[in-house]
Amino acid sequence: MSTQVDDLRWMQATIALAARSPALAAPNPCVGCIVVKDGVAIGRGVTAKGGRPHAEAMALEQAGEAARGATVYVTLEPCAHKSNRGPACSDLLSAAQPERVVIALTDPDPRTAGSGTERMRAAGIAVAEGVAEEAAAYQLAGYLSQQKRGRPHIMLKLATSLDGQIAMTDGTSQWITGEASRAHAHGERARFEAILVGRETLRQDTPRLDVRLPGLEERSPERIVLSRSPAPQGWTGITAPEAVHDLEAQSLMIEGGAGAAAAFLRTDLVDELLLYRAPVLIGEGRTALGDIGLTNLSDAHGQWRRIETRHLGNDQMERYLRTRAA
Amino acid sequence: MSTQVDDLRWMQATIALAARSPALAAPNPCVGCIVVKDGVAIGRGVTAKGGRPHAEAMALEQAGEAARGATVYVTLEPCAHKSNRGPACSDLLSAAQPERVVIALTDPDPRTAGSGTERMRAAGIAVAEGVAEEAAAYQLAGYLSQQKRGRPHIMLKLATSLDGQIAMTDGTSQWITGEASRAHAHGERARFEAILVGRETLRQDTPRLDVRLPGLEERSPERIVLSRSPAPQGWTGITAPEAVHDLEAQSLMIEGGAGAAAAFLRTDLVDELLLYRAPVLIGEGRTALGDIGLTNLSDAHGQWRRIETRHLGNDQMERYLRTRAA
Ligand SMILES: NC(=O)c1ccc[n+]([C@@H]2O[C@H](COP(=O)([O-])OP(=O)(O)OC[C@H]3O[C@@H](n4cnc5c(N)ncnc54)[C@H](OP(=O)(O)O)[C@@H]3O)[C@@H](O)[C@H]2O)c1
Ligand SMILES: NC(=O)c1ccc[n+]([C@@H]2O[C@H](COP(=O)([O-])OP(=O)(O)OC[C@H]3O[C@@H](n4cnc5c(N)ncnc54)[C@H](OP(=O)(O)O)[C@@H]3O)[C@@H](O)[C@H]2O)c1
Repeated sequence: MSTQVDDLRWMQATIALAARSPALAAPNPCVGCIVVKDGVAIGRGVTAKGGRPHAEAMALEQAGEAARGATVYVTLEPCAHKSNRGPACSDLLSAAQPERVVIALTDPDPRTAGSGTERMRAAGIAVAEGVAEEAAAYQLAGYLSQQKRGRPHIMLKLATSLDGQIAMTDGTSQWITGEASRAHAHGERARFEAILVGRETLRQDTPRLDVRLPGLEERSPERIVLSRSPAPQGWTGITAPEAVHDLEAQSLMIEGGAGAAAAFLRTDLVDELLLYRAPVLIGEGRTALGDIGLTNLSDAHGQWRRIETRHLGNDQMERYLRTRAA
Repeated sequence: MSTQVDDLRWMQATIALAARSPALAAPNPCVGCIVVKDGVAIGRGVTAKGGRPHAEAMALEQAGEAARGATVYVTLEPCAHKSNRGPACSDLLSAAQPERVVIALTDPDPRTAGSGTERMRAAGIAVAEGVAEEAAAYQLAGYLSQQKRGRPHIMLKLATSLDGQIAMTDGTSQWITGEASRAHAHGERARFEAILVGRETLRQDTPRLDVRLPGLEERSPERIVLSRSPAPQGWTGITAPEAVHDLEAQSLMIEGGAGAAAAFLRTDLVDELLLYRAPVLIGEGRTALGDIGLTNLSDAHGQWRRIETRHLGNDQMERYLRTRAA
């Protein structure tokens, strides 16, 4: 195998290793690291609960002396800043002297942003960047969003009929999608630090918004309500979509209703769409969105890129990312 | 290869051979036939323009004496009725003495309906039925619909945004879907004998409904308008969806608008859904359907079965069939 193919496969393995609720590592990014020597993984690490130790520290400790001359795969550029919770990872790597360090993403944190890489190069280590960058960026979307935009990565979930209705005229929406879709949606919740509904949905449905999957109960997210009135106990209130800039959560899932969804789309604060569609027709009913502020049809194009489609029972799931300049 | 696998592959080839506008064979079914000996096709036929000669007659003529002992694949049961336009195909086959005749579908035409098969068995020929039946039934849907229900096979086409809108509030719908979808839709038109729009769509858009694909211009379908008022020149009028029982066309495509689409769904006269979805959000706009008469959400389930999904440029195409008791 070529180094390029090798690098891509090991990086995919490293991303898979880090694939768990990013909420656990918050406020740090949930990074993965694998140390490879002679084609064998000799050290593995994922950012620990609460953010420390870092993935690289753990992987290097596992590898021990053998890290010398090895290749280290890491999903995010090793940090360049010491903290009272531990040394900088780029210093740890410089000391361990692997032959190469392969990085998926440059860290936008100004305390690192290229200086982690620089420091390792200065220590005589070959550094490659941008390997499996897109996949890593998707996994670290929440961290990147807080770093670059000062707000969570925001996903809007919609469950509709084939003709785009989310409920019958009288509001009945149990059930449009099937069991497999609903279980999948609960799994998605576990990936999010916070979930938001509009005030009307809270009033009418008082949704629990917990993660009803065995083993995932304790990952239940912060509950947020969009309303100009005060939030009830147990809920965080935000009075406008723009207030997401005050949230510390890295990721926010919008569960509805149509008013809240439209408010976030109108302010261009949706980064990801998660659509579940059931093979049913409803006809006259309630549509998924209200006014999203579109005035020219041509403006609607080029905004959403499909990144996943999946069959879930009889339903279909689709995932889209908002295309934005970097 | 086992006989079963062999049979399935040859029948798929026979169906592919007959895959062209069924309108050309109307009012006869567009049947395919292949005569196979020692693993080689020695005769091929498809129902000719206007319905005669039949596929079997052509394939047997091509095969000549070699048909004796061969296997004959045919998508529909060979007919048992003589006409002044030619002999019954089951008689032709009985005389040609192939070893086996493999049939996808039994002919519901009461003049044949099993007697074609019987006659060949009486002549000492082994007959297998039901091979690739589903694919053949889809190809012959229009013929089967006229035979069983006395009306065309009816397909409803919808082109929507991700949130199920077919136009902006002001009616603008050019363009939601992309070029690849529109080209595909034109190709679909060529498969239909008739196209229907509602009176409002005719009044506002005066659609040409022709097949704007090079080489397919002459296949332009009969134009039908749903309206309680008289139809303009060049158009066939029907005053209610149920009037499709008076049409001779084997296949009818409904192009909209929402009123006409809902009228056909309300009367359960839609057999197939062809959905194009563009990766855009519209929000407040015009929905694809009006009131389709749904009163219980649970009644909406189990009615549609997805049989195809395809990416067309940035859009997605999906095809569903109405599940009905046979
Ligand atoms: N089928 C499904 O998948 C699904 C999912 C979720 C909800 N639902 C249904 O959807 C219905 C509720 O939807 P809805 O559209 O009526 O209401 P909603 O989106 O749940 O809530 C609307 C409320 O959100 C607040 N809001 C909206 N835009 C705002 C903005 N820009 N700034 C500040 N606050 C804003 C306002 O609260 P204040 O008036 O307090 O300011 C507004 O009244 C319920 O029937 C629920 O069951 C269905
Ligand atoms: N974006 C797209 O893909 C697309 C496709 C097609 C059309 N459109 C748009 O859709 C709009 C028109 O849609 P629409 O829903 O207003 O009208 P429509 O469905 O085109 O036509 C409605 C008319 O159909 C007749 N009709 C409906 N139900 C009937 C029934 N049960 N029996 C007899 N006649 C019946 C009535 O005609 P009479 O009043 O004469 O009896 C009624 O006024 C236009 O703006 C068009 O551009 C968009």
